Amino acid sequence: MVRKPSPEDRFSFGLWTVGWTARDQFGDASRPELDPWEYVGKLAEAGAWGVTFHDDDVVPFGSDDAKREEILRTFRKAVDDAGLVIEMVTTNTFSHPVFKDGALTSNDRSVRRFGLRKLLRNVDLAAEVGASTFVMWGGREGSEYDGAKDVNAALDRYREGIDTVAAYIKDRGYDLKIGLEPKPNEPRGDILLPTVGHALGFIAQLEHGDIVGLNPETGHEQMAGLNYTHGIAQALWSGKLFHIDLNGQRSIKYDQDLVFGHGDLLSAFFTVDLLENGFPGGGPTYEGPRHFDYKPSRTEGMQGVWDSARANMEMYLLLAEKAKAYRADPEVQAAFESAGVLELSQPTLGSGESVEDLLADRSAFEDFDADAAAEREYGFVRLNQLAMAHLAG
Amino acid sequence: MVRKPSPEDRFSFGLWTVGWTARDQFGDASRPELDPWEYVGKLAEAGAWGVTFHDDDVVPFGSDDAKREEILRTFRKAVDDAGLVIEMVTTNTFSHPVFKDGALTSNDRSVRRFGLRKLLRNVDLAAEVGASTFVMWGGREGSEYDGAKDVNAALDRYREGIDTVAAYIKDRGYDLKIGLEPKPNEPRGDILLPTVGHALGFIAQLEHGDIVGLNPETGHEQMAGLNYTHGIAQALWSGKLFHIDLNGQRSIKYDQDLVFGHGDLLSAFFTVDLLENGFPGGGPTYEGPRHFDYKPSRTEGMQGVWDSARANMEMYLLLAEKAKAYRADPEVQAAFESAGVLELSQPTLGSGESVEDLLADRSAFEDFDADAAAEREYGFVRLNQLAMAHLAG
Amino acid sequence: MVRKPSPEDRFSFGLWTVGWTARDQFGDASRPELDPWEYVGKLAEAGAWGVTFHDDDVVPFGSDDAKREEILRTFRKAVDDAGLVIEMVTTNTFSHPVFKDGALTSNDRSVRRFGLRKLLRNVDLAAEVGASTFVMWGGREGSEYDGAKDVNAALDRYREGIDTVAAYIKDRGYDLKIGLEPKPNEPRGDILLPTVGHALGFIAQLEHGDIVGLNPETGHEQMAGLNYTHGIAQALWSGKLFHIDLNGQRSIKYDQDLVFGHGDLLSAFFTVDLLENGFPGGGPTYEGPRHFDYKPSRTEGMQGVWDSARANMEMYLLLAEKAKAYRADPEVQAAFESAGVLELSQPTLGSGESVEDLLADRSAFEDFDADAAAEREYGFVRLNQLAMAHLAG
Amino acid sequence: MVRKPSPEDRFSFGLWTVGWTARDQFGDASRPELDPWEYVGKLAEAGAWGVTFHDDDVVPFGSDDAKREEILRTFRKAVDDAGLVIEMVTTNTFSHPVFKDGALTSNDRSVRRFGLRKLLRNVDLAAEVGASTFVMWGGREGSEYDGAKDVNAALDRYREGIDTVAAYIKDRGYDLKIGLEPKPNEPRGDILLPTVGHALGFIAQLEHGDIVGLNPETGHEQMAGLNYTHGIAQALWSGKLFHIDLNGQRSIKYDQDLVFGHGDLLSAFFTVDLLENGFPGGGPTYEGPRHFDYKPSRTEGMQGVWDSARANMEMYLLLAEKAKAYRADPEVQAAFESAGVLELSQPTLGSGESVEDLLADRSAFEDFDADAAAEREYGFVRLNQLAMAHLAG
Repeated sequence: MVRKPSPEDRFSFGLWTVGWTARDQFGDASRPELDPWEYVGKLAEAGAWGVTFHDDDVVPFGSDDAKREEILRTFRKAVDDAGLVIEMVTTNTFSHPVFKDGALTSNDRSVRRFGLRKLLRNVDLAAEVGASTFVMWGGREGSEYDGAKDVNAALDRYREGIDTVAAYIKDRGYDLKIGLEPKPNEPRGDILLPTVGHALGFIAQLEHGDIVGLNPETGHEQMAGLNYTHGIAQALWSGKLFHIDLNGQRSIKYDQDLVFGHGDLLSAFFTVDLLENGFPGGGPTYEGPRHFDYKPSRTEGMQGVWDSARANMEMYLLLAEKAKAYRADPEVQAAFESAGVLELSQPTLGSGESVEDLLADRSAFEDFDADAAAEREYGFVRLNQLAMAHLAG
Repeated sequence: MVRKPSPEDRFSFGLWTVGWTARDQFGDASRPELDPWEYVGKLAEAGAWGVTFHDDDVVPFGSDDAKREEILRTFRKAVDDAGLVIEMVTTNTFSHPVFKDGALTSNDRSVRRFGLRKLLRNVDLAAEVGASTFVMWGGREGSEYDGAKDVNAALDRYREGIDTVAAYIKDRGYDLKIGLEPKPNEPRGDILLPTVGHALGFIAQLEHGDIVGLNPETGHEQMAGLNYTHGIAQALWSGKLFHIDLNGQRSIKYDQDLVFGHGDLLSAFFTVDLLENGFPGGGPTYEGPRHFDYKPSRTEGMQGVWDSARANMEMYLLLAEKAKAYRADPEVQAAFESAGVLELSQPTLGSGESVEDLLADRSAFEDFDADAAAEREYGFVRLNQLAMAHLAG
Repeated sequence: MVRKPSPEDRFSFGLWTVGWTARDQFGDASRPELDPWEYVGKLAEAGAWGVTFHDDDVVPFGSDDAKREEILRTFRKAVDDAGLVIEMVTTNTFSHPVFKDGALTSNDRSVRRFGLRKLLRNVDLAAEVGASTFVMWGGREGSEYDGAKDVNAALDRYREGIDTVAAYIKDRGYDLKIGLEPKPNEPRGDILLPTVGHALGFIAQLEHGDIVGLNPETGHEQMAGLNYTHGIAQALWSGKLFHIDLNGQRSIKYDQDLVFGHGDLLSAFFTVDLLENGFPGGGPTYEGPRHFDYKPSRTEGMQGVWDSARANMEMYLLLAEKAKAYRADPEVQAAFESAGVLELSQPTLGSGESVEDLLADRSAFEDFDADAAAEREYGFVRLNQLAMAHLAG
Repeated sequence: MVRKPSPEDRFSFGLWTVGWTARDQFGDASRPELDPWEYVGKLAEAGAWGVTFHDDDVVPFGSDDAKREEILRTFRKAVDDAGLVIEMVTTNTFSHPVFKDGALTSNDRSVRRFGLRKLLRNVDLAAEVGASTFVMWGGREGSEYDGAKDVNAALDRYREGIDTVAAYIKDRGYDLKIGLEPKPNEPRGDILLPTVGHALGFIAQLEHGDIVGLNPETGHEQMAGLNYTHGIAQALWSGKLFHIDLNGQRSIKYDQDLVFGHGDLLSAFFTVDLLENGFPGGGPTYEGPRHFDYKPSRTEGMQGVWDSARANMEMYLLLAEKAKAYRADPEVQAAFESAGVLELSQPTLGSGESVEDLLADRSAFEDFDADAAAEREYGFVRLNQLAMAHLAG
């Protein structure tokens, strides 16, 4: 239906996605564990441009240095042979039970120190393999019980940790940015930095916040009932959309990690519209990879793994085509116009207008006919129906 | 059961709370509309210290200046006679249909200018009546359809609007701070600045952000499934908890505005614990009023209005007593200790320790026995059970 | 894009949908109140086949009999002139404050009696105007506080009320069925019969349950995070899908009443697929009207009202076309086959096979290779991607 | 704080609760795997009266008959020695990947047959060990994709399966009832029979529904935002509350399985109030065990396992004490009275009153002053505040 993906599309996949053996909270693995290099060629063949990984996806936790080097050498050779890029590296600070109360914000200081060391070690690796983003998902940084976590101290430690990693990146001269990945809950009852917003507020308190931004995941925002496209829009507006994790989620429930577009399709359309076409009135744009962080459903075997990997890219390309046509449609442009979508780019105060000028402008208040203005027909439903006609028509 | 509230408790109520006539989305008013001054004496009698209001709660929308002055004079006299303080003023930019697409971020520029003027007018009023906080709930700033709102432009306009108001406050020399009130949805499908976090991230982009902080409402955060106590904790940590709206909500659904404590009781306990006792390891504390933003249920008549107003204060005082005892309990202190709650205040890096020092510390990584450390018993459930015993025991 | 709707499509609208003046919980009306007959012609012109209404949508609450008759005469003439059918009638037992604690389950017996009388009166009207369904949405039957409602007694009263209405229908010989409309919350904190399932369980306890079924609304099920298509499927399976309310909802939040398809689009596709094409393996089908219960967004004026009314029908027809093509696609049929979708219609026990036979069948257990069977590739993701390709391709 | 639990309290625990090794979706086990008999003594010591288990909790999946017998013998001896009762048995049809698309409703007929055999085998075991309830949680009966499951066929197969099991129980003369356990989602995107209501509606369609009822779990209903106490109330009203799973959940998110009372405390209070004191106006009561289905948090070690097990019982006893005092309080009784809580038990029609009588009663409608009746003060908030005073006062 749509053209084949190509490296120019800059699609990338976490190794833990296709490599997930489908062991879940209530069940055992339904697929075999393969070596990471076995996945690499298949991803390239399917049209991917890049791969990403957690340290533990490639090198078993606790491997000694020699073993680690050997595995990484094999892995990197496979990546090179496949013509793929390692665009992002991340660190697993959530699977081993030592992190059961978190890593950077564990109540146990020795765990915090260990977690920080594990992170720093992977910063070196990220730089070495040429990644441009270092993602940090603090999935265990949180609590189930309000009494069990001093949130002020936790945010202090979180800041200390992130600033330490960021300073290290700068000190080493690495060309690397940090992408924080928010999530509201699961596996902890309440995770710190639960949404894009909380992470943006947190970054504003950092010393080295200039190289710290966001890696928002579709489903994570939707797990809080939030609009993902609005979330990445605010991140863009703040200059902080460093990376993205695209996937699918259906309403507020456990983290589903469906194929991108297989969750809230209309929302996915507008996400792609923003990523591909930018804001209607111009402004910051996203230039990073199109990264998928999904899980092939547990019902699928290895055929389903590759079908689902391809489905992510197909959905993205399909939506990108539709979004291009939507923006180019003169009827849509006219609907934008009459809905005032473009009028919003106009500052509220005129050029050079002061507050005192505004206060003196009787047309703005004293002589403003609010009842008449209230009658404006925005035509938002019709505009949305035009989008539907492009998406599904 | 608990002592009577007194002005020292600094309890305050929005006039729109006890004054709500119980007209809702699906039904007509079940209570009479009284003049605002009729509520004031009753609130004082019940033990409140302060009142707050939207302009339109007191002066009907569109009243001319003479009428407005007259009404405000009557109102202020009633407040003074009752010995109450007007601690906060806010502006209604959501009821009149002119604001159907928002005020500061309406797609219609003339509406934005009108909205800004309405806001500025009430800043003057707020200063005049001696309020210390000017709350801004942008309940209509948002959209139902992603195509209908250029979020980048909307955030630009939102910033322009808030910065204009903040600059005006400074210019006029008013002793007033702005409290933004986040809400995820309702009455709009998606509201801009949906959570405490998004508002913190937004404030970081303001020119006059120093006098802009937050007024988080219990139920609003819970409507996104978020932990309210964590939310106000991050606001405190960011130096931005300027005001609070306490009420009750039961899970993720429409905005219930129940009596404080009648929603998630355990969460309310920890909210009061934080407000009254601060973080376990010290840090910033909340010094503002205890403000209730609730609605007497539609089933209630005027007796129920006053019973419910009192219930808010009773719940707060009851929980405050319990929280004091909880913190003072040696068993709780011991549980804090063994759970590492206080250990979290210790920096992860030692005093003067550099990253290089950390990297050289083999005990932190190479010689760290992760499996052994993983066995630490935090005792979080027992700590929580101690809280339950204080709360309900 | 799609063909015009025609009466054969049997699209119907509640008068309260296009007639909603857009007064909401936080704001005043943004559109004028028109007489009901003014809507009728426009609906017919747009392609609708039927209309439905609450008593109070047409005749103001408390009108005397003469007034009522006069209004109804005018209204029915307008309906006839427009060539429309009145396919369903419902009763407003939620707007007047007398129903603030419910109608059939109000704690006040005099209110219950009044509510029952109001219902019976409209049963007569429904029969008189030739409606085939009498819908009952018990939006105020519920509570905010568990202590305030004896749920056993409430269900007794609910049963008494519904059985009384149903018996009356039978006694009078009316050709009318009752459709209960579940909703989890709003305007009450918890509404009785919150989902399709609870209503099915309730109907099973009725004396006259044979003429009582369901009128499930898309958004109401989705407000509980439930799958609407699964809900109507269980209602069909139980022989109880008497009527439907189609609209749009985005995740778990307040009742949005968006245009059908403007909420969860993928879910809407499968809803239409079921309504138009039935279950893949055959079984009961829905033969009733395609009824829309939506609200034109408050940002819209009268143009938007009619644009949005049309959008419902356009979306339905568009999805119906897509669903037809999806089912007819040989690739989809093959995917059904390999996914076992059709295999599920085969009984688990063979024809004439007893439990003892099953127990004796070693191939079913003792010799069954569970590990081998676990490797079956269902191909569900690929099947879903085929649906996406039809829906958006 | 509260008295020690005793066997008279009939507290029981699933072995999989204290036996959970804390392996979750994102992390490895944090606690050792112990043999089931090791848990039994500890549970008895803590005050439990009974245990329950899945087949696979005790006997590894795929064990041959000899091994199975041996393990069961050891286990039963431990249970007997500890003086415990095995009150319920359930079957694991969700962990092994063969069940990845369900057991009774798997699209694969051979899996359905295997699943049915596994169930029947455990029915024998349940009868043999003297259990009175056989719980069936169909956690994998569902789908992620609407196209992948013919819901009509699935419900046919579900009915076939349950009826087969129920008929087998009757044929064998076992004194055993089936308790279906609803859950809305997780591990499947949408699970069939998602709520108490859907299961009640399903049971009404069974041939052998007389011995099929419900085992509702607190958190499962709350994951759909539903009121658990209302859920078990409708089950009681329907004569179908055969067993309960008590635990804690905080809002709509992944399945938390917290300690009972550590979730929504106010809701837990009213749950216990109903279980211990029945409905205010009388009616059916629950006579079964108080069964806990929770998970000790992953942060806990073995000490935490036992602390948390005890916490469940402590919470229950604490709430039971409070609920007794609440019901006995004359002020509460008076509030019940004035709120009409007891009035709801009065039929709406008088004794012997026919519909025609009601229609002839002008006081019920024609002369009924709805506006006056609307002014009734129910006092629900005050009643709720009295409950709070008992719960937390």
